[in-house]
Amino acid sequence: MKSIALLFLVLVPSFALAQDPLPSWNEGPAKQSIVDFVKKVTSEGSTDFVPAYDRIAVFDNDGTLWCEAPVPMQLAFVLDELKTRAPQEPKLAENKMVQAALQGNFAKLLAGKHHDGLLEIIALTHSGMTTDQFDQSVRNWIKTYKHPRFDRNLPGMTYQPMQELLRYLRANGFQTFIVSGGGADFMRVFSHRIYGIPPNQVVGSCSLTKFEMIDGKPVLIKTMDHFFVDDKEGKPVGIHEFIGRRPIAAFGNSDGDQAMLEYTTIDNRYPSFGLIVHHTDAEREYAYDSHPPSSGKLVTALEAAKNYGWTVVSMKDDWKTIFAGGNKPAN
Amino acid sequence: MKSIALLFLVLVPSFALAQDPLPSWNEGPAKQSIVDFVKKVTSEGSTDFVPAYDRIAVFDNDGTLWCEAPVPMQLAFVLDELKTRAPQEPKLAENKMVQAALQGNFAKLLAGKHHDGLLEIIALTHSGMTTDQFDQSVRNWIKTYKHPRFDRNLPGMTYQPMQELLRYLRANGFQTFIVSGGGADFMRVFSHRIYGIPPNQVVGSCSLTKFEMIDGKPVLIKTMDHFFVDDKEGKPVGIHEFIGRRPIAAFGNSDGDQAMLEYTTIDNRYPSFGLIVHHTDAEREYAYDSHPPSSGKLVTALEAAKNYGWTVVSMKDDWKTIFAGGNKPAN
Repeated sequence: MKSIALLFLVLVPSFALAQDPLPSWNEGPAKQSIVDFVKKVTSEGSTDFVPAYDRIAVFDNDGTLWCEAPVPMQLAFVLDELKTRAPQEPKLAENKMVQAALQGNFAKLLAGKHHDGLLEIIALTHSGMTTDQFDQSVRNWIKTYKHPRFDRNLPGMTYQPMQELLRYLRANGFQTFIVSGGGADFMRVFSHRIYGIPPNQVVGSCSLTKFEMIDGKPVLIKTMDHFFVDDKEGKPVGIHEFIGRRPIAAFGNSDGDQAMLEYTTIDNRYPSFGLIVHHTDAEREYAYDSHPPSSGKLVTALEAAKNYGWTVVSMKDDWKTIFAGGNKPAN
Repeated sequence: MKSIALLFLVLVPSFALAQDPLPSWNEGPAKQSIVDFVKKVTSEGSTDFVPAYDRIAVFDNDGTLWCEAPVPMQLAFVLDELKTRAPQEPKLAENKMVQAALQGNFAKLLAGKHHDGLLEIIALTHSGMTTDQFDQSVRNWIKTYKHPRFDRNLPGMTYQPMQELLRYLRANGFQTFIVSGGGADFMRVFSHRIYGIPPNQVVGSCSLTKFEMIDGKPVLIKTMDHFFVDDKEGKPVGIHEFIGRRPIAAFGNSDGDQAMLEYTTIDNRYPSFGLIVHHTDAEREYAYDSHPPSSGKLVTALEAAKNYGWTVVSMKDDWKTIFAGGNKPAN
């Protein structure tokens, strides 16, 4: 009986493969390019075959796996944290950058080469507490989050076609990683639950913690030391540091993903694949490239896509459904 | 026919489990504590059960998975690199610390709070080249390496009982990670081949690389920026940064592993396990604790082992065999 059950488990994947693994993708060149690539690198005996060990796929998060408009999720978290904490913490309320943030004055936050204002409010909300405390504050926030326009919760703001793509790649022996400018500690709270990607496969912006024994218990205090921004040229750097191998597939949506796409697809010893999600659907989501809402500028990477043969996905034309959990609010 | 083959693959693990998974371990409290822990956390329905997702096991490398005497392997690599390069590179040959290293004057290298001399020769041999070039230099070195006393190659210097332990834990759903003071880029060249641990499960000392396009090809140049030492209090910091979850089992051999063992075993929401490999076998390997050859001091962690119930393994008494590949030189 046990053997039959096991046999069944082994055979199910063969049946599943007969179905369309990407049902939310319209038929067309974008979908076809994905399926062709996966078939190519998984065909044993072919010269294009890539061993499962090296089937590394990297995904940007904001604007690629979920919505980044009107502001990236992590900024929404920071603003909500400040709203909750400022009335109770006079010192926080007096801070000029906190005031700018609460007034929605993003220009002030982003002024200067290093966006000092933004870094300041990130430091205020992302350091000085233990990793467990930070984790809990993100968990609490997730429970209350609703998107201002679509009235959806956090999992409901992920893209259904990309969720299918993650599963399709994993079913074909790929290891899927997030490589995002977002904070690693922030994303790791939900990455497994929302994307099936465990924390150790999440590469993001990060800084060091400090190990301390408090009341005989070991804790890690979040600091801003060795702050590393996993964006633009930082993405291949983060890939090397955390993954240690060159990916064969990269998925992004903005110029911030260009270096990662280049690192993946140029001079790779294996066949490789690059894909850009182009936000073209103002009705069902947002339409932007050169003038994004707050992040996600896409100009040079769209040019590079032509040179390097990256697939460009039009959300409007290539995706049947946008958000995970159907088109109704997911509560 | 295919189904029968698949069925066979599925059933083999059940037969294998009936055999002793740790044949190189003598029967005794150390071996028993390992088996008891694994049984406890894998017994479904028990209150001690830990889901496979959270079965994270972390291993120190030098002195825990392989021999660290008379000098750690990476230092042997550095010395061999300098020996090869100094005759051809006058600037290198003139460097005072390179001269100290080539004369075996380790006291000079280790002088000062931050061991400036050691850092200098590490910088000279571990930065300024592309990651691919560094990778190749380690590969070349491995081919020529022989241990000065045991005349064994690199895989032959790993400990057979620890190899069995790695496989035993993985067969029981654990994810095994290396968390070592050694350089991540150094260890990742051989971690999968030697230990079955892929590069993205290797946490080590590291610094940032720099992304550049050279002749239209993307490369990463190794630098010493953001140098992070994954040792002592740095080990829990590295675990959080790279793994993002608290381990339930930790294996080390020196005071440098104490913080990692504490972080793993104190105030953990799951049952946890700590183990220290004590070098007690001067004949078959080396005997040291308070006065190690060059690294691996074990004093405070041995005291802490009593307080926190960590298993202490005596290599002389608990291990039937020391090195992998039997007791003959592995070439």
